[in-house]
Amino acid sequence: MTNRVGLKHICLKSFHLPLDASADQCEAVRKQVADAGIDLYAGGVINMATEADVDQAFQYARQAGMRVIVASPRPPVLSHVEAKVKETGIAVAIHNHGPGDKFFPTPESVIEQVKNLDKRIGLCMDVGHTARIGADPIQDARRFVDRLLDVHIKDIDVAAPEGRCVESGRGVLDLPQFLKTLIEIDYAGMVAFEFEKDEKDPLPGLAESVGYVRGVLDSLLGIADRSAQLG
Amino acid sequence: MTNRVGLKHICLKSFHLPLDASADQCEAVRKQVADAGIDLYAGGVINMATEADVDQAFQYARQAGMRVIVASPRPPVLSHVEAKVKETGIAVAIHNHGPGDKFFPTPESVIEQVKNLDKRIGLCMDVGHTARIGADPIQDARRFVDRLLDVHIKDIDVAAPEGRCVESGRGVLDLPQFLKTLIEIDYAGMVAFEFEKDEKDPLPGLAESVGYVRGVLDSLLGIADRSAQLG
Repeated sequence: MTNRVGLKHICLKSFHLPLDASADQCEAVRKQVADAGIDLYAGGVINMATEADVDQAFQYARQAGMRVIVASPRPPVLSHVEAKVKETGIAVAIHNHGPGDKFFPTPESVIEQVKNLDKRIGLCMDVGHTARIGADPIQDARRFVDRLLDVHIKDIDVAAPEGRCVESGRGVLDLPQFLKTLIEIDYAGMVAFEFEKDEKDPLPGLAESVGYVRGVLDSLLGIADRSAQLG
Repeated sequence: MTNRVGLKHICLKSFHLPLDASADQCEAVRKQVADAGIDLYAGGVINMATEADVDQAFQYARQAGMRVIVASPRPPVLSHVEAKVKETGIAVAIHNHGPGDKFFPTPESVIEQVKNLDKRIGLCMDVGHTARIGADPIQDARRFVDRLLDVHIKDIDVAAPEGRCVESGRGVLDLPQFLKTLIEIDYAGMVAFEFEKDEKDPLPGLAESVGYVRGVLDSLLGIADRSAQLG
């Protein structure tokens, strides 16, 4: 599916590669992704309740060749996360999950906890969850630019706690303005499609969402600059 | 598929509804499309070699409730086409098919033949075929605005006779500039997705193409104006 929609990078979730995968399993998946011509840049979202969870996540990422862990840690393990970041060079992008997330509901709540840690610990901004809790993805991208390590892009049908994922361009988020902001702030990380609708048949909705983002980027940058855009 | 990608209008081809369909078959299909909440605005591309073909096409369109026939007529039947347009009020948009089309390879070749006919006979500009023959879809949309009745949008991998259809946004056409031009000239007709790749499984590529055009339009018009855009 990733190849069919013309994307070049992927973040695997535990249902693609289990967190307790052996070194051989990680290597097999790393090779499978590489052989498909895709860059396995990250894994996640990975929950980290204990230091053992942190250790497992870093081993998993290292064995699979991932450069980023998208994480949902409990605050007490953050100092251990920082130690592992320094040890491995793998970055950690903490995912804000909106209403219902006790620890990291908003981008701001992430920044509050990581601001004094190693710069390689930062934010994976989920634009849907950010808007569901009433925060502003555009404003927060600007505010937290120096800690913005990853982005989950999607659209939602209503900017409220009950908001649900829809195809990009069919919801309420101003994704053109959001993408324009990412360009203006020189965001250099990934913009990852997290398409949570049509679980059993996600390809058409994913494809529509990818097309939408390409259309926005071509309009903002012109088609001559396409090679500089998302793969 | 039309509903899944969120489009509200459709043009049927003969493989959807045969040209020799009975009145009952036409009515059944008309009802099926209407019940799906979709506007059956047109049929085509329909070849018209003889006056009998013309009569059949108009009967087909009338029985199915179509307002436009997208046509590939031979020039000698055009006066009969004009008579039927006047009789029925159904418009005829002549499709330019690029290199290999003896009669209507370019938008200009269409305009040359229809310029003295009823204004309801005009052009269905196929942006892919226009570019394949070395004409400029953007320039020709401006030149022939008063006869532009329908548009086939697509992208192609190379602007040359051998060019093939690809997902919108993955080819060489500057679709953002083309769509911007349609807005500037107040084009009021349909922009129809003619997706000719992946014949056996067209939905993902169609969805990507629809998403692309929505992303371009949202970037050009802002998301507040979405209701005024394509359905």
